[in-house]
Formats: sequence, structure tokens, C-alpha cells
Amino acid sequence: MSRLHSAVLGATGVAGQQFIIELADHPMFEVTGLYASERSDGKRYADCGKWYLEQPIPGSIRDMKVRDSASIEPAQYDIIFSALPSEVARQIEGACASKRPVISTASAFRYEADVPIIMPEVNPSHFELIERQRNERGWEGFVMPGPNCTTVGLAVALAPLHQEFGLKRVFMTSLQALSGAGLPGVASLAITDNILPYIPKEEGKVQKETLKILGGLEGGAIADADFSISCICTRVPVIDGHTEAVFAETGQPCSPEQYKEAVRRFNERFRKEYSHLPSAPEESIVIMDEEDRPQPRLDRGRNGGMSVCVGRIHEDHSFRRGLSWTGLKFVLLSHNTKKGAAKGGILVAECLVDKGYMKRR
Amino acid sequence: MSRLHSAVLGATGVAGQQFIIELADHPMFEVTGLYASERSDGKRYADCGKWYLEQPIPGSIRDMKVRDSASIEPAQYDIIFSALPSEVARQIEGACASKRPVISTASAFRYEADVPIIMPEVNPSHFELIERQRNERGWEGFVMPGPNCTTVGLAVALAPLHQEFGLKRVFMTSLQALSGAGLPGVASLAITDNILPYIPKEEGKVQKETLKILGGLEGGAIADADFSISCICTRVPVIDGHTEAVFAETGQPCSPEQYKEAVRRFNERFRKEYSHLPSAPEESIVIMDEEDRPQPRLDRGRNGGMSVCVGRIHEDHSFRRGLSWTGLKFVLLSHNTKKGAAKGGILVAECLVDKGYMKRR
Amino acid sequence: MSRLHSAVLGATGVAGQQFIIELADHPMFEVTGLYASERSDGKRYADCGKWYLEQPIPGSIRDMKVRDSASIEPAQYDIIFSALPSEVARQIEGACASKRPVISTASAFRYEADVPIIMPEVNPSHFELIERQRNERGWEGFVMPGPNCTTVGLAVALAPLHQEFGLKRVFMTSLQALSGAGLPGVASLAITDNILPYIPKEEGKVQKETLKILGGLEGGAIADADFSISCICTRVPVIDGHTEAVFAETGQPCSPEQYKEAVRRFNERFRKEYSHLPSAPEESIVIMDEEDRPQPRLDRGRNGGMSVCVGRIHEDHSFRRGLSWTGLKFVLLSHNTKKGAAKGGILVAECLVDKGYMKRR
Amino acid sequence: MSRLHSAVLGATGVAGQQFIIELADHPMFEVTGLYASERSDGKRYADCGKWYLEQPIPGSIRDMKVRDSASIEPAQYDIIFSALPSEVARQIEGACASKRPVISTASAFRYEADVPIIMPEVNPSHFELIERQRNERGWEGFVMPGPNCTTVGLAVALAPLHQEFGLKRVFMTSLQALSGAGLPGVASLAITDNILPYIPKEEGKVQKETLKILGGLEGGAIADADFSISCICTRVPVIDGHTEAVFAETGQPCSPEQYKEAVRRFNERFRKEYSHLPSAPEESIVIMDEEDRPQPRLDRGRNGGMSVCVGRIHEDHSFRRGLSWTGLKFVLLSHNTKKGAAKGGILVAECLVDKGYMKRR
Repeated sequence: MSRLHSAVLGATGVAGQQFIIELADHPMFEVTGLYASERSDGKRYADCGKWYLEQPIPGSIRDMKVRDSASIEPAQYDIIFSALPSEVARQIEGACASKRPVISTASAFRYEADVPIIMPEVNPSHFELIERQRNERGWEGFVMPGPNCTTVGLAVALAPLHQEFGLKRVFMTSLQALSGAGLPGVASLAITDNILPYIPKEEGKVQKETLKILGGLEGGAIADADFSISCICTRVPVIDGHTEAVFAETGQPCSPEQYKEAVRRFNERFRKEYSHLPSAPEESIVIMDEEDRPQPRLDRGRNGGMSVCVGRIHEDHSFRRGLSWTGLKFVLLSHNTKKGAAKGGILVAECLVDKGYMKRR
Repeated sequence: MSRLHSAVLGATGVAGQQFIIELADHPMFEVTGLYASERSDGKRYADCGKWYLEQPIPGSIRDMKVRDSASIEPAQYDIIFSALPSEVARQIEGACASKRPVISTASAFRYEADVPIIMPEVNPSHFELIERQRNERGWEGFVMPGPNCTTVGLAVALAPLHQEFGLKRVFMTSLQALSGAGLPGVASLAITDNILPYIPKEEGKVQKETLKILGGLEGGAIADADFSISCICTRVPVIDGHTEAVFAETGQPCSPEQYKEAVRRFNERFRKEYSHLPSAPEESIVIMDEEDRPQPRLDRGRNGGMSVCVGRIHEDHSFRRGLSWTGLKFVLLSHNTKKGAAKGGILVAECLVDKGYMKRR
Repeated sequence: MSRLHSAVLGATGVAGQQFIIELADHPMFEVTGLYASERSDGKRYADCGKWYLEQPIPGSIRDMKVRDSASIEPAQYDIIFSALPSEVARQIEGACASKRPVISTASAFRYEADVPIIMPEVNPSHFELIERQRNERGWEGFVMPGPNCTTVGLAVALAPLHQEFGLKRVFMTSLQALSGAGLPGVASLAITDNILPYIPKEEGKVQKETLKILGGLEGGAIADADFSISCICTRVPVIDGHTEAVFAETGQPCSPEQYKEAVRRFNERFRKEYSHLPSAPEESIVIMDEEDRPQPRLDRGRNGGMSVCVGRIHEDHSFRRGLSWTGLKFVLLSHNTKKGAAKGGILVAECLVDKGYMKRR
Repeated sequence: MSRLHSAVLGATGVAGQQFIIELADHPMFEVTGLYASERSDGKRYADCGKWYLEQPIPGSIRDMKVRDSASIEPAQYDIIFSALPSEVARQIEGACASKRPVISTASAFRYEADVPIIMPEVNPSHFELIERQRNERGWEGFVMPGPNCTTVGLAVALAPLHQEFGLKRVFMTSLQALSGAGLPGVASLAITDNILPYIPKEEGKVQKETLKILGGLEGGAIADADFSISCICTRVPVIDGHTEAVFAETGQPCSPEQYKEAVRRFNERFRKEYSHLPSAPEESIVIMDEEDRPQPRLDRGRNGGMSVCVGRIHEDHSFRRGLSWTGLKFVLLSHNTKKGAAKGGILVAECLVDKGYMKRR
């Protein structure tokens, strides 16, 4: 069977580069169109700016001509992967989605009632919203935005807790990688021997999205999960891999060992559902028992950058209630441009094919 | 008046170097003895290993002879500043304290009932314990350990909250500087493009010490403050300056503006009590209103590295109770080897002189 | 005597920030006008963008209004300090110089025959060209560009060799700091765990400027020095301080000890001529004998960032000629935004006042 | 055919880890013994200290027991790979070589007359010395040390120049990666926002080894190549990948294009001789035409870390002789722990098998 024709929008940015790496030899999708800003229109892909990845530009892509994103004719493709900057995403993605499925890393549509933020291991029931979205908007296609790269790890790591013990309050501090700010992104003078304690709009996004992702579907609409999340988001001098320090108060008592068991069940369900998909990792969550892990440089690439690594799982006296513990602290790591952006979106696309939501041109 | 004769123990380490820089031109103290490990015995100070500070070794110190810490005769000095590693601190500091006042950055004596951890702006009443310590131990001198470098910023930033609003639960994630690990400390291969999510024993120390420092004095003994603190301590690629992200639940409602006012009162008291002392900063806490501050490289040196910078002070929906907010989130920064170690200890020594606890040989 | 009124053009960039720090409490000059790009027009200085220096913005400057560089009326000032980007420097600096002395860090005028590149310790005779410049151009003022920040350290370190032993060939590899690329400058993703082996146009500038600076004045014109220089210029993850590795073949035999003696004489002349000027360092060249120095973080601030540190001075078998050595290798370090840009320009301005080239409005 | 039994000595260090990664699935060799310092004796490999590589420890190795290097019985193996520190290498490698072939990354035997430093693409004729070594020393095995990691890139990049144009003088400045200093290696406090301008003994090694490697075999002995090399070696904050800036004066005129053609021929010969060996890269030298390459983070992994990348190849006026150019400048990059240590050694071992120098137990 021939591969589905795919366009990449915003192909020259950080997430765009990851789409290109991951799609280069993909068994289901084939990149047949590259789009970026007007500035790149008409250039060879390899001439369009700085490549940040250690793997070189795939040979099949180097010489492809890039065109202006605004000029895309969506009907030429089976699926469209968008890594557009948020300023322009809303209009172009909307136009594309009226014709074809659009998988996006942008936030433009994330907060609309008929748009799910799918994480296959967490909320597969939300796929149902696709029909509502198509009907309400009169679209042939639909738009599927992925979560913010910082939401990704948190939503996955909390899911087994939420499912089995309930959650009451979560306090999270992120130590986010440079690639999350895109290109050119953070100036080297700003981050050498330094930490930036603020990332515009990030904290609100993480809080809102996590509750939506972990929410249930009631009467064809998502009901946000009912607990509170507080975040402080910082930028650190790390290339890839967002680290998050989490304090989570649960509804029911939950020991570290109980959390680990819940994760094992969560991984087992994930394996059953998705292990036949090319981008699915062996485990959605990798539990690390060494006291000094996860570490971004050593662990971000685990299972092709598609696992969330969780370590330093401890009970904490703040959560002691008599003889039991109603909460945990832990540290998680998630690859922000793989799991947290492009490759995470490709896994959703694979699910769409698998579940029959995609038809060919 | 001639300056008090001072010895520096552990003079070649990171905190030892800061003692030397800060004492070099000090109006009250004069370095007349340098001590380090046996390995350095008999060497010129400048030949004893790597100097990490941007300021060069003071001319008056370069050629001084270093001796083995174990050989110190405390009676030769008026005061002893110790930056010994904890393994050897207990025995040597104890021997010194039997004769003379010892100001220490080590943890050896921190958790003993008759030993206060003094932060002059927070718990000056704890100076009273000195008499108890001398009497119970039969010492002519006494030992005054400073807090762990990560405790320092937290205890100071929480003090105005604790005093005026009460505290219930605190969740803190630290992003700690490399100099906190001493020399040689963290390997460059371990921390380049990386974060270390674990610092041995640090979390327990911060939790325990903060409650002791903020505790009251009842019947000649410290009663720990009555709230809970949970910490996750990480190491980041920053030379100096510990950043801490804090979520603090208060007893009484407290808005960001109310916290800032409490800080102003706190600073005012500090100024009244201590502004005549050479190492006292203009403000104990510097409130930063720019959204992206404090930053370690830009702000750690504020007021000679002796202020705790607090920014990003926000209410947070986790703390909403009806119409009011019973908590805050904020980010603090504290210079770990100045305020958080040597220079903080020197300020305590200045208080001792000021309050009449020191007598000359 | 009241201070001379000074404007800073390009006041918000990296070199502009250094001009502001160094002029804030200057005994001769007072900043009375701030100019930057149109984007900053009408804003408070503190609101004009990122400040990169560890010292905070001086209180006297924070609230000053910034205006568009193109709108400057030079006659309002006694002297104009320009840190304009090269694209716009030529026109604006020319207009200013037609009225007033302009000290510039830009390259716009560096290569013109009637424009000297003054380094006071190296080529004070070149001040003579000012008259020729005024006459030929019919200007009331004049323009004095400083050298490229990478030229500075090389020209100074070679000067004693050139004067006493002659030079034949010089091979230099630079390891240049991030601040040399200005703001926003190098992207953090581009330089973390990385080296950039190329800096556009830098190598040609260094080669050309060094020969002009070390050239003699013959018949009212500069005759370039007669030796060859080859450079490879790289960017490294260091905030401030350009390191340069130099292989220098001399005309006459020259041992390391002979070079050090020549440096001592060079420093002695410098001290005699300039020690009364506020920005003059105690020594123009600091010889470092420790095998592992100079290092940017530890040594760039030496003498207020105005000395060139030279270490690792060795003979090398490539330069052996029978029993003597006709060349050396060494490593130098020079603070690129102090000595190599703003503060170096201020020292030239101090010389101009001292030598009577400046008159007041 | 079963794989040859191999021991790794010094298995826990930086080069030892690379041996383990590269041998884990090697078609010719199988790791059957792991040896490290006494401190690791009896431990599981995974418990022996810090792993620095992004790839995890191979599953087949994690639980293997490590023994004290001094206890090795060489007759149990077909070949021994040694990454021992130089202090202990001489004695243990000698004892092993008396029985079996030893491939080493240590310098202990490098400078002995009967010991070749083999780089298969440069000096395959030097394999002949193995017989002389065995005979003179009465050994059943032999020792084959690889070059210093900084020598590797230089010797390869110079080889085509040396072969086709001759060399007169070479000036090289290195920007060396952290992993070259091993573990724990360089302290993070020493290298953050910094450069170290000195690496003990490195410059002499590079000079000496390069001339030996490029030397000819005359009468059963190596005659060093007859040109001069001067080096300045520095350490930079890069994890892996040594960058070297080279100025090379040739005997015959040589343009950049002529050098590139010589490289093409050099690569062609390499391909013919070695392309059937598992660790041989497609090209020994990768010529990079983009002006800003090679860069360590982006290019060190090229061809499995086994190619030397050469870019910024330019003529330079220092080398102008009338109408032609008798020299070049360029920048090279070589992966110091792959090509420059373990994997380079494994390629030599593959050659030994291929050429029949190895027999099985």
C-alpha cells in the first residue's frame, strides 16, 4: 500500500524539523509538501535556515522546494502536519481542516469545546469529538492539536494516579529545555550561567490543558477533571527534554509502590492498544529507580523519545494522614520536541489511520 | 581598635574562598590563620588548589602558609570561621568551640537542641541559646552553624509570611548552583546539557532547618514551627545562585500585595537592627516586579550577594478560598556561597560582636 | 569643572550597555543623551530591552528617555560615543562627526586612509591624522573608530614584539565570547554543547586592522606594518572575554624571557603616559606565569577589564633556528566589551581631552 | 563462526564505555570479560559509577561482574581492549601483550621504536612492525596503542596533504571536548562560562605522534615525517568532539580545490581497502562546504563518529608565493571517544583479523 501524502507546515522550525526526521522513513506517511514562512518560499529545504538536530537532514528532503504556508492547497494531501507558529496557525490550519485532517503542535484550536487534545494513552475516548467537530463546523477534515510540550509529561504521569486514586491538588515546577522556545529562541547571552524563571503564558496553558486531557466525556462534551494544578515554569540551559518536579495530593491513599503498580497496569493497557503502531514506545511511562534519574541528556531519548520517564517517587510528610500517605512527590522527564510535539502528533495520526478516521484522497 | 584575630578552617574550598574574600578588608576581623586538609599543610595559600572566584586571591593572603586543620590551637584566635567538610567538622569544630566562638558552614552541630541556627533577620531571639550551650557543654566558646545554603533563601522569604499570616504547607523545588557542591564538585560531563534531579540529603536538611529557624523559643528550647515543607532539590548548570520555586499555603488570606507590604515591614525592622553592620545589605529581601526576574546571573550579586531576591509573586487558583487567596507562589534567588554560606556567617559574627558575645583574647 | 556632555548612540546593545556602565560615574563625561533604534524612541531606558550585564542599570540612567539615533542633534553634546550597528553607523556617525568628536565601536570608518584606529599604548602618533581628517572632510569634529574586539588583544600583545624584535608571520586562532555577537546574538540552541567555527568577516578585519594599528606614519599617512597575519575565528560558549592562541614568528631571535622584558618596558611607557587617566589600567599587558592561565571567567575582569592577559608563553620547535628561537607561542585574553569596545573607546576619549583635542560647546 | 572473546580493561571510564557500546553487537568480537580498578572488583557493571553516554548500558553488559584489572588472565581471551589510565597501563598491558594482542587507548607504549601507532587509512605499512615487536620482546601477543585523541583528526586531515604536496610547517590550535579528560574529569565550576587554555602534556604528544604516524618505514624502523608541528591545546565546554584550527604550509603549491581532490583520492583508497570492515566509515574524511561547519554537536556523529570532518578550507595570504599558494587553513572535527579512542581501536582490531594477525585461542 502506498504511503499517505503528507504536508508539513512550519517545516523549518524546531518542531518542523522533528516532523521531517520522524516522517522521513515512516511506513504510513510520505512527505510530499513542505511549507514555511514567505521568506523561505521557493528555496531548497536545506537552504532555509539553521538545522538544530544532531541527525542530518534526510537525503530525500534536502533538495525539496519549500513553499509559503499561506499557499497550501490542502486537497493535494491526505493529511497535514502543522508546526506553524501560533500567530498564523489559526487561519491556515482552519482552511486546511475544512478539507483534510490536520495534526498540529500549535495552540490555536486547543481550547475550543469541539476540539479534543488527544493523548492516546490517556484519553482515547476523546476521538469521538471528531464527528461533532466536523458536523458543527461543516468540515470535511478536522483539526487535532497536541498539548503544549510541558503539559505532555505531566498529563501522562498523572493519568495513572487520576484513574486509580483521584487527584486533589498538584504543584509542578518545570525546568524546560531550550528547544521548547523554537528558533532562534532564547539568546545564548540570556541563558549561559543562568535560569529564566518565566515563560510567557506557559503556566496557564499547562493548568488548563491538563484538566481538559484528563477530563471525561459527558454528553458529547469534555468535562474538565476536577482538581487543581499550580505551576511555575522556568527555562534551563538544556537542549532537549523538559524536567518537571511534581507534588501530587491524591484522593485516596497512595504509596510509591501503589503508584508504580498503577503505572504497570497503565503501560500494559498502552501496549495492548498501541504496540502495533510504528511510533508507539514499548512503555508509555518508564519508572526509574536510581535516585539520580531521570536526567535530560541521558534519558530524553528513551524509547525513541516517546516515553515519559518518572523517578524520585517518594512519599512526603506533607501528605501524611495518620498511617497512610495521600500524595507523592516525583520528577518526570519528557522529550519536548519528540513526545511533546512532532512525534507525539505522528502517533495520533497513526491512531487515526488505525481507527479508520482517515481516508485517502 | 585592632581587628579580631580570625582563623579560617577549610580555607581552600568554595566557602573557604568566600570567607577569605569577605574577610580580606573587613573592619572587625583579620585573617591570621589558614587551615585546610593535611594535603595543603605547609603550602602557600596560592598553591593549594583551584581558585573559583572571579575576584583574585587577596594580596595579603596569597603567600600565607596553610596548616592542617587538625593542628589548630584555637586559643591563638578570637574567633574561628569554619568551612570544613562535614566528615571532619564535628571533631575539630567541637575542639575549637571548647575555647572560642566558632562560626560554621558545616551541618555537624545544626540539629542539636542547644545549638541555634541563627539568621539575624529571622530569629535573633535564638542567640539566647548560646548561654545554655556553654553551660551544658562546659565550653568557653560556642558553635554557631549557619543553615544549609538552600535553606537560607527559603527561611528568609517565608519569614514575613510566617510572622504575619501563618503557614500551613510549603512546596519548594530548588534549582541549585554548582558552587553549592564545592570543589571539585559536579563533573562537567555530568551537568553539560543536563539537570541532576537529586542532591543527597538536601531535601531533608531544608525541611528540618527551616522549621527550626522559624521556630519559637519556649522555656529555653526551640519549638519547631508548625507547618509542613516538601522539597525537590535539583542541580542546574549555574555557577552561583540558588533559585527556588515556592508554593506557600498561608493560615490567613494573603494577597501578593499583602506579602509585599509584610516584606517592607520586615526590611524596615532589619534596617533598624542591623544597618550599622558591615555585611548587612540595604534590604534583606528585594522584591522584583519584572515578570522575568530574579535570574541568577543578573541578580545573585544584589547588595553584595546578601539579599534574597523574590519575584513572580502571584496568587494561584489552588489557593482560592471563596473570594480570598490563602496562599501564593513565587520564585526566590539567594547567593549560595555569600548569603548562603561565608558572608552570612560573617554577618552573624558581626552581630556577636555587636551584642557583646565576643571577648578578645 | 563640569563634565562634558555626552551622547550614547546604540545605547541598548551590548557595547552600548558597557558605555553606560563606564560613563555612569565618570569624572570627565556625563551621559546627557541616549539614542537607539526607532523601536526604542520615546521609551524609558529600562524598558528598551534585555540588559545583559551583572551590574544593574545605573540609577541615573534607568528613567532617561531614549530617542531614535537618526534624530540626534550633535551640537547638543561635547562628544558622541557610538555603538551603532555597522549598517547605520556610516551615515549617522558621519553626520555627527561633521560637528563633534565621535568615538565609535563600529567598523564603518575604520579602513579609510584619513581615519586612525587608535590604541593609546600602541600607536599614539596616529592621533596626528585627526587634523588631516578634519581638513580633508571639512568637519568640525572627527571620527575615531576603535578596533574590532578581536583585533584589540592581538595588536596589544604583538606590539612589544613588533617594536623590539620585528614580526614576520603570525597565526592566530580566536575563541570568541558570545557578547561579541551582540543582542540577541547567537541562539542558545546553536552554541550549547557546541563551537561555531566561523564568524562572518571577522578574520579579514583582524588581519587588516592589526597591520594598520601597528603601522608607522609616513608623510601624514599610515603605512601598514610589513608582516603577515592569518586567522581562524571561532565562537565559544563564554559570556565575555576573547581568548586567542597565537604563533608569532619574529624577525630577530626572541626568547620568552626577552618577550616578558619587552612587555615590562611597554607597560612602563604606558604607565608614564597614561596612569593619570581614569580608565587606564595599571598594566596594559598582564603576564601570567601559571601554566593554565589566562582563563576568561577568572581573568577578563583584571584591572577593570582593561588589561590584556598573556600566558602560556613558550618557545616552540617550529621557530628553532640553530641555537636560538625566532618566535613564540602564547595565549592571550582580552575583555571584548570593555577593553575591546566601550571602555577602550572611553580611554581614547580621555586621551583626547588630555591632549587638547576636545573643546567644549 | 563464533565471535572472538574479548576483555575490556578500564571498562568504566569514558573510553571504556565507548568500547562497550561499540562491541555490544559487534559481528567479530564478544565481550567476555570486564576489568576496572580494584574499587569496582566484584560489582555489577551497572553499579560501577557514572555512565556518561546517551545510549543506555547494553542489556548484555549491565549485570556482568567487573574484576580488578590487575587480576586478568590474558590467555582466557582472544584479544584485549585496554582503556586503562596511563599510570597503570604499562605494566598490565605489557603482561597481557606477552600472551595476546592488546589494542590500547593509553599512551604507555606509543613512543617505543618497535610499537606502531596504526591509523589504517594513513600508515597501514606500519603493521609490519608487529613481527619485530614480537621477536624483540619474545611476546606471543603484541600491543597496538592508538594515537592521542587530538592527534587522530590532525593526522588524518594532514595525510592527503603530506602524501601529495609535502608539508613544511603546521600550526594547530585545538578546542577539545570534556570527555577527553575522562571521568570525573574537568570540574563543572572550572569550565562553565570558561575556556581552559592548557591540557597537561597534550601539545607534546600531538607533535610527536603525528610525525610518527605520518613517518615512513625504513629498514624495519619508522622514520618520523620531516616537518614541524606547533600546537596550542585548549579545553572547551563541549561534551564530545575535538575541533582543531589548522594552518598548514605545504612543500608544493596546493589550492583548496587541489586539497579536496587529494581527499577524494584518499577516501577512494580507504573505501577500497576497508569498506568491508564493520567499523569503517563510508568516508575517512568528510569535506564540508558550508562556511559554518564542522560543528561538534551537529557533526561529531557523522558516519558513526568515525569520519574526520574538514571545513573552512581556504588559502591564506600568509601562504602566497607569487601566483600560487603554498598552504591552507582549515578547521577539522573528530569524535574523540569514537574515532579518537575506542571505535578507532576496534577498527584496527578488525584490520588485524582481516590481515590474519589474529589467531584464536
